[in-house]
Amino acid sequence: MTNQLDKKSQAWSALFSEPMSELVKRYTASVFFDKRLWQADITGSLAHAEMLGHQGIIGKDDHAAIQKGMAQIWSEIESGQFEWKLDLEDVHLNIEARLTQLVGDAGKRLHTGRSRNDQVATDVRLWLRSEMDLIIDLLVDLQKSLVEVAEKNVEVIMPGFTHLQVAQPVSFAHHLLAYVEMFARDAERMSDVRRRTNRLPLGSAALAGTTYPLDRERVARTLGMVDEHGNAQVCQNSLDGVSDRDFAIEFTAAASLCMVHISRMSEELILWMSQNFGFIKIADRFTTGSSIMPQKKNPDVPELARGKTGRVVGHLMGLITLMKGQPLAYNKDNQEDKEPLFDTVDTLKDTLRIFSEMVGGQVNPATGQKEGGITVNAQAMEDAAKKGFATATDLADYLVKKGQPFRDAHETVAHAVKAAASHNCDLSELPLEVLQSFHPTIEKDVYDCLSLHGSLNARNTLGGTAPVQVRAQIERHHKRLA
Amino acid sequence: MTNQLDKKSQAWSALFSEPMSELVKRYTASVFFDKRLWQADITGSLAHAEMLGHQGIIGKDDHAAIQKGMAQIWSEIESGQFEWKLDLEDVHLNIEARLTQLVGDAGKRLHTGRSRNDQVATDVRLWLRSEMDLIIDLLVDLQKSLVEVAEKNVEVIMPGFTHLQVAQPVSFAHHLLAYVEMFARDAERMSDVRRRTNRLPLGSAALAGTTYPLDRERVARTLGMVDEHGNAQVCQNSLDGVSDRDFAIEFTAAASLCMVHISRMSEELILWMSQNFGFIKIADRFTTGSSIMPQKKNPDVPELARGKTGRVVGHLMGLITLMKGQPLAYNKDNQEDKEPLFDTVDTLKDTLRIFSEMVGGQVNPATGQKEGGITVNAQAMEDAAKKGFATATDLADYLVKKGQPFRDAHETVAHAVKAAASHNCDLSELPLEVLQSFHPTIEKDVYDCLSLHGSLNARNTLGGTAPVQVRAQIERHHKRLA
Amino acid sequence: MTNQLDKKSQAWSALFSEPMSELVKRYTASVFFDKRLWQADITGSLAHAEMLGHQGIIGKDDHAAIQKGMAQIWSEIESGQFEWKLDLEDVHLNIEARLTQLVGDAGKRLHTGRSRNDQVATDVRLWLRSEMDLIIDLLVDLQKSLVEVAEKNVEVIMPGFTHLQVAQPVSFAHHLLAYVEMFARDAERMSDVRRRTNRLPLGSAALAGTTYPLDRERVARTLGMVDEHGNAQVCQNSLDGVSDRDFAIEFTAAASLCMVHISRMSEELILWMSQNFGFIKIADRFTTGSSIMPQKKNPDVPELARGKTGRVVGHLMGLITLMKGQPLAYNKDNQEDKEPLFDTVDTLKDTLRIFSEMVGGQVNPATGQKEGGITVNAQAMEDAAKKGFATATDLADYLVKKGQPFRDAHETVAHAVKAAASHNCDLSELPLEVLQSFHPTIEKDVYDCLSLHGSLNARNTLGGTAPVQVRAQIERHHKRLA
Amino acid sequence: MTNQLDKKSQAWSALFSEPMSELVKRYTASVFFDKRLWQADITGSLAHAEMLGHQGIIGKDDHAAIQKGMAQIWSEIESGQFEWKLDLEDVHLNIEARLTQLVGDAGKRLHTGRSRNDQVATDVRLWLRSEMDLIIDLLVDLQKSLVEVAEKNVEVIMPGFTHLQVAQPVSFAHHLLAYVEMFARDAERMSDVRRRTNRLPLGSAALAGTTYPLDRERVARTLGMVDEHGNAQVCQNSLDGVSDRDFAIEFTAAASLCMVHISRMSEELILWMSQNFGFIKIADRFTTGSSIMPQKKNPDVPELARGKTGRVVGHLMGLITLMKGQPLAYNKDNQEDKEPLFDTVDTLKDTLRIFSEMVGGQVNPATGQKEGGITVNAQAMEDAAKKGFATATDLADYLVKKGQPFRDAHETVAHAVKAAASHNCDLSELPLEVLQSFHPTIEKDVYDCLSLHGSLNARNTLGGTAPVQVRAQIERHHKRLA
Repeated sequence: MTNQLDKKSQAWSALFSEPMSELVKRYTASVFFDKRLWQADITGSLAHAEMLGHQGIIGKDDHAAIQKGMAQIWSEIESGQFEWKLDLEDVHLNIEARLTQLVGDAGKRLHTGRSRNDQVATDVRLWLRSEMDLIIDLLVDLQKSLVEVAEKNVEVIMPGFTHLQVAQPVSFAHHLLAYVEMFARDAERMSDVRRRTNRLPLGSAALAGTTYPLDRERVARTLGMVDEHGNAQVCQNSLDGVSDRDFAIEFTAAASLCMVHISRMSEELILWMSQNFGFIKIADRFTTGSSIMPQKKNPDVPELARGKTGRVVGHLMGLITLMKGQPLAYNKDNQEDKEPLFDTVDTLKDTLRIFSEMVGGQVNPATGQKEGGITVNAQAMEDAAKKGFATATDLADYLVKKGQPFRDAHETVAHAVKAAASHNCDLSELPLEVLQSFHPTIEKDVYDCLSLHGSLNARNTLGGTAPVQVRAQIERHHKRLA
Repeated sequence: MTNQLDKKSQAWSALFSEPMSELVKRYTASVFFDKRLWQADITGSLAHAEMLGHQGIIGKDDHAAIQKGMAQIWSEIESGQFEWKLDLEDVHLNIEARLTQLVGDAGKRLHTGRSRNDQVATDVRLWLRSEMDLIIDLLVDLQKSLVEVAEKNVEVIMPGFTHLQVAQPVSFAHHLLAYVEMFARDAERMSDVRRRTNRLPLGSAALAGTTYPLDRERVARTLGMVDEHGNAQVCQNSLDGVSDRDFAIEFTAAASLCMVHISRMSEELILWMSQNFGFIKIADRFTTGSSIMPQKKNPDVPELARGKTGRVVGHLMGLITLMKGQPLAYNKDNQEDKEPLFDTVDTLKDTLRIFSEMVGGQVNPATGQKEGGITVNAQAMEDAAKKGFATATDLADYLVKKGQPFRDAHETVAHAVKAAASHNCDLSELPLEVLQSFHPTIEKDVYDCLSLHGSLNARNTLGGTAPVQVRAQIERHHKRLA
Repeated sequence: MTNQLDKKSQAWSALFSEPMSELVKRYTASVFFDKRLWQADITGSLAHAEMLGHQGIIGKDDHAAIQKGMAQIWSEIESGQFEWKLDLEDVHLNIEARLTQLVGDAGKRLHTGRSRNDQVATDVRLWLRSEMDLIIDLLVDLQKSLVEVAEKNVEVIMPGFTHLQVAQPVSFAHHLLAYVEMFARDAERMSDVRRRTNRLPLGSAALAGTTYPLDRERVARTLGMVDEHGNAQVCQNSLDGVSDRDFAIEFTAAASLCMVHISRMSEELILWMSQNFGFIKIADRFTTGSSIMPQKKNPDVPELARGKTGRVVGHLMGLITLMKGQPLAYNKDNQEDKEPLFDTVDTLKDTLRIFSEMVGGQVNPATGQKEGGITVNAQAMEDAAKKGFATATDLADYLVKKGQPFRDAHETVAHAVKAAASHNCDLSELPLEVLQSFHPTIEKDVYDCLSLHGSLNARNTLGGTAPVQVRAQIERHHKRLA
Repeated sequence: MTNQLDKKSQAWSALFSEPMSELVKRYTASVFFDKRLWQADITGSLAHAEMLGHQGIIGKDDHAAIQKGMAQIWSEIESGQFEWKLDLEDVHLNIEARLTQLVGDAGKRLHTGRSRNDQVATDVRLWLRSEMDLIIDLLVDLQKSLVEVAEKNVEVIMPGFTHLQVAQPVSFAHHLLAYVEMFARDAERMSDVRRRTNRLPLGSAALAGTTYPLDRERVARTLGMVDEHGNAQVCQNSLDGVSDRDFAIEFTAAASLCMVHISRMSEELILWMSQNFGFIKIADRFTTGSSIMPQKKNPDVPELARGKTGRVVGHLMGLITLMKGQPLAYNKDNQEDKEPLFDTVDTLKDTLRIFSEMVGGQVNPATGQKEGGITVNAQAMEDAAKKGFATATDLADYLVKKGQPFRDAHETVAHAVKAAASHNCDLSELPLEVLQSFHPTIEKDVYDCLSLHGSLNARNTLGGTAPVQVRAQIERHHKRLA
C-alpha cells in the first residue's frame, strides 16, 4: 500500500523541489521528545474519529478500522516495538503513518477536519492535565509527611528566626506547618491551572475552523473536558485555540513557585544539618560522601533541589520569551514549548516524591510503619532557643499588661537586654531586683513569661505557636488532606 | 510630648551604640516608594484598633483617640501637608510617629499585638487587592473595545496567517476576538490571584503570634477579607503569614502573561501599519514623528507596549530570584518586593487603559459616540488575502467530499497550486479544464469554494471564522461583559 | 581485584549505614549527561598524573600504568564499548573505577592531591574552551556567508525601516552587514569569555588546597592554560577555584546575546518571506509544509531559531538563580550547571551552522560553487522602497544646503509630504511648480536627490549606505575574516 | 522668536492632525528619567558641532553660538533652574529647544546630519562609560577593604565548608580572598564591556548615514572614543549603530554576576552573624532593630543586598526580552532600555560603596585610621572548626604518605571517624592505640597533622590556605590594586 507520509523524507508535497537536509531534519524534528505524548495523541484521535463517525463524516467501517489500528499501535508502543522515524518528524505523523499502513484509506481519513496545529494543542493539554493530577497527589503526600512529623514535635521548641537572628521561641511543629500552608497554596494554584488547561482546541483546524460539520462539544465530553456543571469546555476562537500557550506558562509559573517553596525548605534543612545548628539529621540514603574527605555526609538532595529551582525558573523565563511578540496564529516557535514543559513536570514530580520520603520516611512493609524520615535533636533546638534573648518581647508584653504603652515598654526592655548581655546571661537569669530596676511594676511572676515554655504557651491566638493552636491546625490539616 | 520614634535617627533603641549612616539610611529606607501604601496602612490600623478596643486590650478612649488622629493624618496626607521623614524609614513608622505626636499614649498603644512584619504584609495585600479590582475593570474595557471594533468588521476578510505565511481567509472580527479570549483568561487569572491575596496576615505579629487575645477573624471581616460564603479569610500559620510573598509573584506572573498578549497584539498592529501591509491606521495621537525624517508617523504606543513586556517579565524574574532560598521567617530581602510590584501595577494599568482607547476610540462628549479608534482598510486586507492560495485547503476539502481520502486530496491540490504558481495566477483563476486535469471529479461548483467569501462562510463550526459563528461569539461576549 | 568504588552502590564509606535509594540515585546522578566530558576528564587526569610523577608523588611505573589504562579507556569509550554505570554516579567515578579495575593500585593513586570538586571544575573548563573555539569558527562562517550575499547585492535597494515604517532607502548589502557587526561582536565576547575560562582550578582539591607538593603551573602548561605571553593561568584561591561558575554564566550570557541577534535576523527573514513583502526566498530544505494546507511553505528554521532564543535565555536565568545566595565553597547545587550549559552549546552550534548554510548556501561538490542560499527578489524590494516617501529626508537636506535651518526644512517637507499623500503620489512625482510652492529655492536638480539611487549614493560617509561605503566595508570584512 | 519644537505639544509636524493625548504623552515621554543624560547630551552635541564647523557644514559663528548657548544650558541645569518640559518628550528635545530659544537659527542647525536615533545611542554610551569607570574604582575599593581585613586574620582558623558541612580548616583571610578573586573578575569584565561601549554611533543618522560630509572619526577622537593605540572607534554600520543595545545587555549581565557575588558574601555574613555561628559582627550603623522585639539587631544591609540581586537580574531579563525578535533598525521599544540600565548602575554603585565600608570600615578623620569594619570572633571560629572531624583528610593523606593508595586510606579513615563519633570526641582525641588499630603504620607524629594549625600549614601549594600562601596572595593583591 502506498503511503503519502512515507515520502515525507523526500519532500513535503509536490510543491517542494528538494528534500529537507539532514541537519535541518534534526533541528526541526520533535519526535525525540514529543513521543511521550503518544497516549494523549491516540486518545484524542479516537475521540475525534468517534465524532467523525457519529456525524457521518466518515463511515462506520472507517471508524472501526481506526479503532482497531489504534489498539494495535497502542500495544506496539507500550511493548517498545513501535519504530519511531525521524523522517516522520513528530509523534503525530509517526502514529498516523503507521495507522495508514495498518488500515489504509481509513487512516488517511482520520485527519479530516483537523490540523496538526489543533491536534498538538489538544495532545499537550490532555497530557498536562493528567500530570497535574499526579502533581496534586504528590503535593498532598508531602503535606501529609510534614503533618506527621509535626504531630510528633508539637512541644519541641526551636528558635524562631527573623533575619536569621533569634527572634522568639516557636514549636518545631509550627515551623513545619508553615510549609504545609505553602504546599496547600501550590495545590490550589495547580487546580486553577488545570481548569484553564481542560479546554478543547480540536476543531480549530489550522487556524480558521473547518468546513466539516464537526461536533466539538461531543469530543470535549468524550475527553472529559467539562466543567463542574458538566458543560463541555471548548476553545471558543479557532485562532486562539491553535496559538494559545497560556496554560504552559501558567503551569510553569505555578511550578516555579512550588520550587521556590522547596528551595526555602531546602535552605533550612541544609542549615539545620550544619554542625553549628545540628537540629536534625536526614537518612543516609539522601546524603552522599566525599571522594576526598572521609568524614563527610552531605545533604545532596536538598542542595540539588535548591539548585533545580533555577532549572524550573529558567524554563518559565524561556517560555515567556518564546511567546513574546509572536503574531497570530500558530508559529513554529511554539514547538519549543515542549521540552521545558516536560522537564518542569519531571523535575517537580521527582522533587516532591523524594521530599515526601525524606521528610516523612517510607513504609516498612514488615511493620506497616513509616521509617527513615528526619531525625530531630530536640535538645540542640532548645539550647539554640536560649540564645539571643528570645523572650524579650514577652517581657515587653508583660510591661504593657502592667500599663506601659507598648513603645515605652519596648525601650525599657532594650535596657534590660543590654544589662543581661553585659552580664553574659539570659533575661531569665537576671535577679528580680535588677529587673525591677528597669521598671518598678515587675514582680516575681515575670519569670513565667521569660521561660521558653511560658513564651510558647502565651502565643495562643489563631495561627500562633502555642501547642493548643498547633494541635488545632494539625487537626484541620488531617481533615483537609484525608 | 516626647516620642520614642523621633529618636530613631539617632539609634534604634538603647541597644544600639551608633546611629545609622546616611548612606545606609538611603539604602535601607523604603518611605520613598512605600508611602503609596498609606491608605491601606491607615485602614489596616483602624481595623486593628477597633478589634483591640472590642477585646478590651485598649480602652475605648484610646480607640477614639486613634480614630481621631488617623482621620487627621488621612486628610494631611491627602492634602499633601504630611511631612514624610526619611529618618522614620517607612510609611508605617511615619504614620505611627505622627499619630503619637497627635494623640500621645493612645498612639503608642496601637502597635500592641502587632509587628511591622504582619503590618506590611497586610498593607500590601489590601493595596494589591484594590489595584486588581481596577485591573479587572480595565481588562473588561479593553475586551469591550475589541468587541465593538469586531462588530463593525465581521464581513471584512483578511489573510489568516500561520508562520506569517498566508494560510486561509479569516474575518477581521474573528481575528480581534482571539484577543478577547486572551484578555478574558487574564481577568480570570486575576480573580484567582485576588482570592489568594485576600487573606489576613495581621495577628501573626513578628513571626510567632502574640500574647494578646486578638480576634483575627473580626479584623478580617472588617477589612472585607471573606470568601464567597462570608467566611473570614485568615493566614493560618504565623510564620507563613509574615514570610509569604506568593501573592506578589503570582500577580506578577499573571501580569506578565497579560503583557505577553499585549506584545502579540502590538506586533500585529505594527505589522498591519507597515506600508507593505497597510491594513489599519491608528489615530495620530498614538503616534510620533521623527526628528530627521519629515514623512514619518511611527506606532510608538504599540512599540513601547511591546517593550514594556520585558519590564514586567523582568520584575517577575526579580521577585522569584528574591524569594529563592530564603529561610523562614521574615528577612529584609522582602522589602525588595515592593518596587517591582508597584511598577508592574502601574505599567499594566497604563497599558490597558491606552490600548482600550487606541483600539476602540474615546467618547466624544458632543455626540456620545466613540471616535478615534483604529481605522480599517478593508480593501488592502482583501487584496492581501488573495495572495498565497489561501483557499487551497478548501479545494482539498472539496475533493474529500467527492470521495478522496484527505491525504490524497492534499497531494492533488499541491500539484494544482504548483500549476497556478507557474501561471502566476490564483487557484480560482485556473480554467475548469485545468482543474479537472488534477482530478476528474472537479466540477463547476468548485469555484464557490475557491472564493474568499465562500471559504469564509464554509468554516461554520463552533469557534470558526464563518460570519454566523463570529456574530454568535460577539453576542456571547456582549452578555458576558455587560 | 577488589575495588572500593564498586561498593559505592551499597554505601559511600564505612560511615554510611544504608545504601542510596534508587529514586535518590536517579535524582542525584549526573552520569547520563556528564559523560560527554570524558575526553576532558581523561586529558585532565593525564596532566595531573604526569605532574604527580614529575614531582615524585607517585612512581614512574604508576604513571605509566595510568597512561596505559587511560589509553584503553579512551578507545573503549570511543568505540562505544565502555559500560557506564549509574551506581558510579558520574563520569569521574566511572572512569576512575574502570582505571582501577585495569591497573590496580596505580589507579587508586591517581586521585592523590585532587578532589572531585576541582576535577569537575577543570573538566568543564577544558570542555567549554574547545566548544568556544568551535563556536568562534562558526561565527566566522556565518559572517562570511553574510558578506558573500552582501557582495552580490550592493546595488539592490530595499526600504530601510525604523518602527517598521519605511524610513530611507538602503542597500540590501548594507542591511546584511549590520548582522555581520553583531556576529563580530559575539565572536569578540566569546574570546573574552575564553580567556577567563582558560584558568586551572586543579590543585584546589576539596576547597583548601592540598598537602602534596603539587606543581599547578606545570599542569596548566600541559593543558594549554597559558595567556598570550605564555604565563600559566591558575586559579589563585582554592575556595574560589572549586566554587566559581562565573565562566558558565558569562558564556551563557554571551550565547544569549548571540541568540538575540539570531532572533532579530529570523524575525526579518520571516517578514521578508511573507507574501506582503516577498523580498526573499530560502531554499526548500529549510522549510516545511502543512498537514492540512497544501499550498504552504513555512520558514520553520528561522521560526524555530527565534523560539530557541527563549531556551538559551532560560538557561541563563536558571544558572544565575542557581548561584544566587550560595555560601562557599562547593555545594551540590552546582551540579545543575551542566545540563543548561550543554544545551546552550548544542543549540548555539546547530543554529549557527544551519544559518550559515541557509543564508549562504552550501558548496556543490561538482562545481565547487556555493548553492542554495537565499534568493533575492530585487524588484519587490525596490517597489517597497518607493512607498512611504523614503526620500523625504533627502528633500530636507536639499533645503538645508540651500540655506534653511534643518528644523525649518523638516517642517517644509512635512507639508510637501502631505500634498503628495493627498495626490496619492511619491514626492518625486510632484511637478516642479508644486515643489517650489513649498520653498522657492527648489530647482530642477531636486529630482536627483528624490530618486532612490540618488538618495542611496548621497549617504556617503563612513558606515553609511552608499555603495562605495558598503564596498569598503565588504573589503574590510574580507580581510578581517580571512 | 518662534520655535518649531515648542509646538510639539500640539503636533509633531504639519503631517499630524491632532496633538498627542495626555495619557499617551506620559506613556511615551522619557524626560523624567533620561534627563540624567544631560551632560552626555551636551558633550556629544558640542563634539558634533565642532566637527560640523570644521567641515564647513555650519558656519564658525553658528558653532560659537552653539557653544555659548550650551554653556548657559549647562549652568542652568547644574543650578536647577532649567525647566524640563514633558511636552518636549525627552532630554534631547528639551535641550535643543532651549538652545534654539537662546541662539536662534544656529540652534536649529545643530541637528544637521544627525538624528535622535544616533544621538541617544551616543549619549547612553558616553554616560555608561563614565559610570563604568566609577564602578571599576568601587570594585577596587571593595577588594582593598577585603584585603585589609584578610591581612589581620591570616592566622585565624575557621571551618571551611562544602555543602555547609564542616570540611577542612581554612584561614579566615583565605576565605575573604576568595571574594577578592570574584570582584577582580568583575572588574575585568567591566573593562571588556567598556571597550565595546566606547564606540561612536553618531553619524549613523536615522539609520542609513547622512548626506553631509561628516568626519565621524574626528568626533570619536574628541569624545575619547579611541582604542589603546589611539585609533578612533566608530560603529561601522549605520543600521547597527542605531539599533545596537548589546552594550546595555552586556553591562547588565556583568552587573548581575557581580551582584551574585555580593549575594554569596551576604549569605555568609548573615550566617556568620547568626547566634549559632557568632563568627563576626558588623557595625551597628549597618543593622536595624525590630518594632516589636527589643533585643533584635538585624543585618539589614547584607539582606537587602542579597535581595537586590533579584532586582538586577530582573533588569537583565527585561533587557533581553526587550531586544528579542526586534527587526532593524531603531524601534521605540528601545526607549525601555534606560530605566533598567539606570537602576542597575545605581544599585550596583550603592551596594559596592556600602560593602566597602561595612567590611573595611571608614577612615576616622581624627586618627586617619579605618574604623567600624567587621569584628571577628576568632574563638568562635576556631571552636566551630573543631567540630565535624575537619582534619580527616589530613589523616588520609598521612596514610598515603605511609604507602596506602588514596582510595584505601579514605576508607580506613571513615572507620576511624565512625569510632571517634561513637566516642563523641575528635580524631585528635583518640588514643594512639586506637588510631593504630585502624592502620599499623600510624605513629605519634600523626597528632601533628590532626591539629587545626598542622592541617592549615600543610596546605602549602599555590592557592592553598597555608598562611605562607595566603600572605603571598595578599602581597600580590597589594601590588595589583595599588
